[in-house]
Amino acid sequence: MSPTEDEITGWFRQQSRLSPVDFPIGIGDDMAQISLGRGVSVLITTDMLLDGTHFDLRTATLKQVGYKAMAVSLSDCAAMATVPLAAVVAVALPHGFSGERLKELHAGIVLAGDKYNCSLVGGDITSWRTGGPFAICVSMLSKPGEKPPVRRDGAEVGDVICVTGSLGGSGRRKHLEFEPRVREALEIVRRAELHAMMDISDGLTSDLGRICSQSGVGALVDASAVPISDDAKHEADPLDAALNEGEDFELLFTLGAEEWERLHQGWGDPLPVTQVGRITDAERVEIRMTDGRTMDLKAGGYDHLGV
Amino acid sequence: MSPTEDEITGWFRQQSRLSPVDFPIGIGDDMAQISLGRGVSVLITTDMLLDGTHFDLRTATLKQVGYKAMAVSLSDCAAMATVPLAAVVAVALPHGFSGERLKELHAGIVLAGDKYNCSLVGGDITSWRTGGPFAICVSMLSKPGEKPPVRRDGAEVGDVICVTGSLGGSGRRKHLEFEPRVREALEIVRRAELHAMMDISDGLTSDLGRICSQSGVGALVDASAVPISDDAKHEADPLDAALNEGEDFELLFTLGAEEWERLHQGWGDPLPVTQVGRITDAERVEIRMTDGRTMDLKAGGYDHLGV
Repeated sequence: MSPTEDEITGWFRQQSRLSPVDFPIGIGDDMAQISLGRGVSVLITTDMLLDGTHFDLRTATLKQVGYKAMAVSLSDCAAMATVPLAAVVAVALPHGFSGERLKELHAGIVLAGDKYNCSLVGGDITSWRTGGPFAICVSMLSKPGEKPPVRRDGAEVGDVICVTGSLGGSGRRKHLEFEPRVREALEIVRRAELHAMMDISDGLTSDLGRICSQSGVGALVDASAVPISDDAKHEADPLDAALNEGEDFELLFTLGAEEWERLHQGWGDPLPVTQVGRITDAERVEIRMTDGRTMDLKAGGYDHLGV
Repeated sequence: MSPTEDEITGWFRQQSRLSPVDFPIGIGDDMAQISLGRGVSVLITTDMLLDGTHFDLRTATLKQVGYKAMAVSLSDCAAMATVPLAAVVAVALPHGFSGERLKELHAGIVLAGDKYNCSLVGGDITSWRTGGPFAICVSMLSKPGEKPPVRRDGAEVGDVICVTGSLGGSGRRKHLEFEPRVREALEIVRRAELHAMMDISDGLTSDLGRICSQSGVGALVDASAVPISDDAKHEADPLDAALNEGEDFELLFTLGAEEWERLHQGWGDPLPVTQVGRITDAERVEIRMTDGRTMDLKAGGYDHLGV
């Protein structure tokens, strides 16, 4: 059996010998942090998006693809509550890809960049000599906001588990048009002290599993509290869609109960923040169903290596 | 006819409205530079390498591919005489790509990174759902050395044009095993004040054309002075190979005649630096052949979009 992406990432992390002084955050979080001296640091993320895997050029426009490629990396900036700075974009082009189509892609890149104050500063254009599909790789820099970047590995037993927005059904439309939660993340950390955060790219189940495994804790999710998107309500099993489909690009975070009360009561933003469960000292992630049964919540989210 | 990579890059550059305070070097150079305040800045480059285009997995090992992917970006750091810091690596995997093969790739990445003090700090692993070949995208950060980064657009009429090493025939072996000229670039700028520099990735003809076009100058290359590699000497037209094949990853730079004298006389490094011509006020790049004829030197180098 092939290793999962988490197993491979874990192996890469074990291999790395990054000095925590030069690299306060290394492999395995949403972004890595590099210290540059004089109290200045920068964070970096990279995301490769493939035709047929992350979008389908038979139905999506290149403007949508450019937007999505940027938004996925902007969501990583949000996941750590950092401020986007600049991006470089590399593309692999199929035969006969025209300059006009590159301009359409560029329009989507700039649309997302302008919205979140992230400048396109460079790139690389390559073409497949052998036949190959369209691919785009965005690498993005951000800087810490007023608060330090929020990591994945700080969740504590007793923490409230929260998500922004609603989950599931992203494949219908949202995955091409979503708003990365950059502003909301900065607002949340301004109002409350978080213990852990990431963005939901592979589904609540998978990504909460990552926070728990990296923090050495467990979790209990309340099925009745999971905010299910309108698009997911059209699906055969809306709860399953909300838990496992992925590409929600909402924020998933944990914080102490008092901090949660404070955040929740003062929260005036139109985007809801919802408590979906609690961090536990169990060695697993569980879910309490509406009928009162509790069961293990196992990764059914989309695993990139498991395809 | 499809636009060339230079035309597209030129269009992207025109579209960008980068503030020179925040972005001292923007689109169109080997790296972009981002100011972070407190006198600190960072540079970034991205390079996408494709199976069948930049390497052939039927003959190259994954360790060689990982090494090359890093070395190409390290060569960009060298091209501006900057100091490599950190890299993120994204890969697109064909069906059935095993974890063992990822470890082999990782070995090549780390081999290059360790040699030039550039840490692997993150990445992204994706798989083609539809069939698609192997692709790897490296994005790398560097910082300025003791001297400011050397740009492409500073060449002046009367400058001496120089290259490191020898050119041509890289496809035989060198393109998978080359040493990026990181140390040499830093040593050169320590010894002399350069006006312009880049690395030769698409061939001396193409890349000298870029320096000239971005600097608003012309050039005259002396055919008898072009250092032809041993591998190129086996080819049907060794001079053409040295001028146009590309993937040399040597340094191409220009500097005043007195600075060149000083650099040349004090140069003790085993890697040769050779004068190959002069910057002129002509509006074109020319070459003087060994029989005394002068002709236009036009880009016959490998153009990624022209395939």
